Amino acid sequence: SVNPDLASERQTASFSVEKLTALLDGGVEQTRIRRAVVEAIESDPVFSRENQYFQTQNERYEAAVRKAVHLQKKMHEMGWTENGPEYKYIYRALSGDVAFLLHRVFMRSISVLGSDKQIAKWIPLATQHKLIGSYAQTELGHGTYLQGLETTAVFDAATQEFILNTPKISAMKWWPGDMGRSATHTVVFAQLYVHGKCYGIHPFIVQIRSLQDHSLCPGVTAGDIGPKMNFEHIDNGYLLLKNVRIPRENMLSKFCEVRPDGTYVRQGSQKINYFTMTTVRISLISDEVLTPLMKACTIAIRYSVVRRQSKLKPGEQEAKILDYQTQQEKLLPQLAAAYAFHFINDYLQELFNRGYREIQKKKFDMLPELHALSSGFKAVITQHSTAGVEICLRACGGHGYSLLSGLPSLYTKILASCIYEGENTILLLQTARFLIKCFMAVSAGQPVPPSVTYLAAVKPMKCPAKNKLDFLSPDIYTEAYQHVAVRLISSTAAKLQDLIQSGIKKHDAWNQCTVQLVQAAKAHCHYIAVKNFAETVEKLETKAGIQKIMKHLCDLFALHGIFSNTGAFLHDGYTSAAQMDMVTASYLDLLAVIRKDAVPLVDAFDFTDKSLNSALGSYDGQVYQRLYEWAQKSPTNQMSPAYERYLKPLLHNTLSKL
Amino acid sequence: SVNPDLASERQTASFSVEKLTALLDGGVEQTRIRRAVVEAIESDPVFSRENQYFQTQNERYEAAVRKAVHLQKKMHEMGWTENGPEYKYIYRALSGDVAFLLHRVFMRSISVLGSDKQIAKWIPLATQHKLIGSYAQTELGHGTYLQGLETTAVFDAATQEFILNTPKISAMKWWPGDMGRSATHTVVFAQLYVHGKCYGIHPFIVQIRSLQDHSLCPGVTAGDIGPKMNFEHIDNGYLLLKNVRIPRENMLSKFCEVRPDGTYVRQGSQKINYFTMTTVRISLISDEVLTPLMKACTIAIRYSVVRRQSKLKPGEQEAKILDYQTQQEKLLPQLAAAYAFHFINDYLQELFNRGYREIQKKKFDMLPELHALSSGFKAVITQHSTAGVEICLRACGGHGYSLLSGLPSLYTKILASCIYEGENTILLLQTARFLIKCFMAVSAGQPVPPSVTYLAAVKPMKCPAKNKLDFLSPDIYTEAYQHVAVRLISSTAAKLQDLIQSGIKKHDAWNQCTVQLVQAAKAHCHYIAVKNFAETVEKLETKAGIQKIMKHLCDLFALHGIFSNTGAFLHDGYTSAAQMDMVTASYLDLLAVIRKDAVPLVDAFDFTDKSLNSALGSYDGQVYQRLYEWAQKSPTNQMSPAYERYLKPLLHNTLSKL
Repeated sequence: SVNPDLASERQTASFSVEKLTALLDGGVEQTRIRRAVVEAIESDPVFSRENQYFQTQNERYEAAVRKAVHLQKKMHEMGWTENGPEYKYIYRALSGDVAFLLHRVFMRSISVLGSDKQIAKWIPLATQHKLIGSYAQTELGHGTYLQGLETTAVFDAATQEFILNTPKISAMKWWPGDMGRSATHTVVFAQLYVHGKCYGIHPFIVQIRSLQDHSLCPGVTAGDIGPKMNFEHIDNGYLLLKNVRIPRENMLSKFCEVRPDGTYVRQGSQKINYFTMTTVRISLISDEVLTPLMKACTIAIRYSVVRRQSKLKPGEQEAKILDYQTQQEKLLPQLAAAYAFHFINDYLQELFNRGYREIQKKKFDMLPELHALSSGFKAVITQHSTAGVEICLRACGGHGYSLLSGLPSLYTKILASCIYEGENTILLLQTARFLIKCFMAVSAGQPVPPSVTYLAAVKPMKCPAKNKLDFLSPDIYTEAYQHVAVRLISSTAAKLQDLIQSGIKKHDAWNQCTVQLVQAAKAHCHYIAVKNFAETVEKLETKAGIQKIMKHLCDLFALHGIFSNTGAFLHDGYTSAAQMDMVTASYLDLLAVIRKDAVPLVDAFDFTDKSLNSALGSYDGQVYQRLYEWAQKSPTNQMSPAYERYLKPLLHNTLSKL
Repeated sequence: SVNPDLASERQTASFSVEKLTALLDGGVEQTRIRRAVVEAIESDPVFSRENQYFQTQNERYEAAVRKAVHLQKKMHEMGWTENGPEYKYIYRALSGDVAFLLHRVFMRSISVLGSDKQIAKWIPLATQHKLIGSYAQTELGHGTYLQGLETTAVFDAATQEFILNTPKISAMKWWPGDMGRSATHTVVFAQLYVHGKCYGIHPFIVQIRSLQDHSLCPGVTAGDIGPKMNFEHIDNGYLLLKNVRIPRENMLSKFCEVRPDGTYVRQGSQKINYFTMTTVRISLISDEVLTPLMKACTIAIRYSVVRRQSKLKPGEQEAKILDYQTQQEKLLPQLAAAYAFHFINDYLQELFNRGYREIQKKKFDMLPELHALSSGFKAVITQHSTAGVEICLRACGGHGYSLLSGLPSLYTKILASCIYEGENTILLLQTARFLIKCFMAVSAGQPVPPSVTYLAAVKPMKCPAKNKLDFLSPDIYTEAYQHVAVRLISSTAAKLQDLIQSGIKKHDAWNQCTVQLVQAAKAHCHYIAVKNFAETVEKLETKAGIQKIMKHLCDLFALHGIFSNTGAFLHDGYTSAAQMDMVTASYLDLLAVIRKDAVPLVDAFDFTDKSLNSALGSYDGQVYQRLYEWAQKSPTNQMSPAYERYLKPLLHNTLSKL
């Protein structure tokens, strides 16, 4: 039975939840396929996550391997293939709780970096799981700066082999998933030396464990890097190589090759490789960032209409905590952001598909823009969403702090997305470098990519809003965001120029501007996200109330951004203090409007109870019952030796009852 | 041997680290006592935290009980007493990793709420550990709103007993520490009923487990609430009571008593009780908030001078990451905040000592101000420090994400401080209520407590700064903070008045202002923190370079607050855009100045390697070696059944070596 406090929230929905779900999925047929996958996965006990919060790191790893192996069988059984429409829903249905993800990266790197001959040899072996692959790039001492990697691969012409070494401790490979305990092979990135000359970083396939008995190969030291904040199911590993010899053919040689006599040959274009890196950043947004944010919103919002605390009006029943303005102000902007990021993700995916088609025609013009957008949005979305999940957790008070709420694990996992696949600050500075370049080009009258043409547009220097309702006009707020982005980019470009002209060296000048460059890059992404949300809303069908509620969310997303960052808009007087008060008024009004549809808006994300795995977030809202029943199963309710060992001797008393 | 990249940082300190440590401790003698306690605790293997990151929740609990029991012995051995000067350093030296903390709360509540007779009976039993106590206030359905607690205690005149019941699931006690597995007794808060009439919440001593065999007493259901984000060492518990009878004498009766015939008598003043609640909030700041923040700063800053990544200048060695402006901008403001909060904590402690002396003279005038300050600063300091620890964690990239860095456990633990002892938003609203009241009083020409007299002061409406150096003047920035606090308090008071005058009911009007009330309360606390830091710096001796470096930190704390919140200062034109650019310039300049002393500034916190328990933060900076050695000891490097069970059948191949 559904908790009546939750049920009542659903009766007053201003729109069709089912239609919004289909919109998010990209059509009714996609919703059907997704649900079928979820149903197949969740009805299979091997994939259960029920005990997850009670398990040790070792148990989590074992379960993840078990699931990965079982998944092969399941896919065969269900007729799912890697190219089929179901495939993209499997990982989401498993909540990512499965091993061998790096095995897929191993395969992709061979496909992208390997010669046809290498692909023909290794891909079938990997597909049939006759080996388990990993991808060993990051070292203890090097993450971001690939050129600084210290592992060496020295060509020995006499034996036609490469000799791989970890020359010092900071050169040890560190972090690669699936490598700590599972992998038999890995792609090692190492500095290539031929006849004493260094040719820089290249990829090599290296066997690290025996296929007979899984023992480490001669010269190989490898293991697990130990406990982490999350990802207990993954055996992130370390790898130390001592004179490990591999055949010449194991250097991945689509772009570079060492001939038998030691001649180094570079061939083809590496631009497609550069493109691969950017697509990875975009592809992680959906499963690794949006899904956790949407889950956190679902849990926190459902809980906030079931939890009653204190009285809003004297003499009445205690109030649902979502009726407090401060609670709305915590949760509803996160909900709006989840929708905003969903739509910007669609935009990025489309852009990348277009980029991919261009590249296949050997046209590489879109690459710099794609790189800048993927870097910037990876950083902005992961950062914003991580903060959002944390806000959801805190907004649930003590119960949010229990692992059984599901929120701590969502938080500790999404946090990693700020660090992996490019640390966020570094990525924002890459976006900033592109923006400064484009700003210079625009100033010189040169053409620039579409997403930055706004840098050239001449705009009114004052916000034209006259009352608080004007701030519900997308033109008004989109232009305000655009103005701020232009101002931050142009002022930082000016500071950079001034420093250089004052005699400071370019790299020093750059470093002295980086705090502001990061702000400029964020403002650019924020502007594009707002503009895209507004444009998406405009295109929605006006039926079924969906456009209306999406418009509210778009307004909230935009106004929350202004309200949280008023200085950027006030700075040069583009927005006046009086206008800022209008923003605040409209923003606070919107909270009360969206609050009415809050539950239907999270219901539309269509998470099952099993996928939420949360005592606070279930569809029926029976929070307290679930917490109690679940807690009773905790291993902490087994007999502890602490009583016999420590408590009994301590109490050691003769009193029977005080 | 100390990593040379770390050693070089210490050679150029602009001040005496030892003198700064003594300043933080409150004198050379305090430093000596603290170090002696730390030495005694850390040299005792029972108190080791070495395996902490590898342990399960059950193992952590057992270790904490073992330590708690051993601590009794240790204290006796060392001659430490609860009233001795060493006592306050013990908990810090143990990093809080010990059981029976609620046993102390049990004792305190009896001391404060019990009659002399009750104190005489229970305190000796508790002191000698003839029982283990807990404190059962929070319920599944009620935390913040004490009046809403649902547990009942019905007086039965026939048997002279109270009958305790958990009438529904939301009334179950939930969260009390030491109660899940250890406690034999607890103080239960329940609604008192006598002859059918409810008298509200009262405290009762209830035995929950047998002193013979530790089995649950009749009518009692209790257990552990399961996994949490941290506090694995504490057995937070649940408690369900079914017709549990306790003698009439077990109601704590200093303030209220039920006579044998059922007459309810209220006696004495409860004001002291109200004061107790506020002191708890202040007392947690030092150990639970400042220490973790200081540890996080120590770890992240030491790591940032050892970690080299990318090149700042082409052709040179890779740069220490602390040399990047963006890294300085992440870490140094947290360092400044740690010092700012240390000094405001001193200020609050002093104020509370004064308050305590006044109360002993039956003067209660200071109570509202003390309550407002303790609530506001508890919220502001926990929130700011939690965010600071998270920034430190992220600033260490992947290695920060490893539990072995120590940062994840610092973060997950400090996060709880935002929730317990009063949820932060609720607390800020209490401060805001006080501020609004004082503002009204000031407007009516009435006197107000010292910390809010500034609400009456007439100040210039424009910031007088003329160049960036002016923003290094404490008068300039303190007045700016004051101006913002006055503006936010007065404008919110005006909004509240307007709403009420427009016919909206008082409670609705209040709710519609809460987002802004929270901002106003924060601005008030921020202003006081800045002012106090500036005043503290002024009083420091000018020798040994300490005043100079503290002045820099004070400036950084103040300017970082303005830089991060420019809108508040720009809003009404108090600060102009040109002045804000000066703030930015001065702020960025300061980062480079303080960066030079960053390592000595964290060294002054004087944490031992054992207390940091971090592979990244040790005094010698041998980061990579320590990560590698420690990881090898992880249970994840034991043989896993996953190979035989899943990997071997999967690989099932005939290839010996590819």
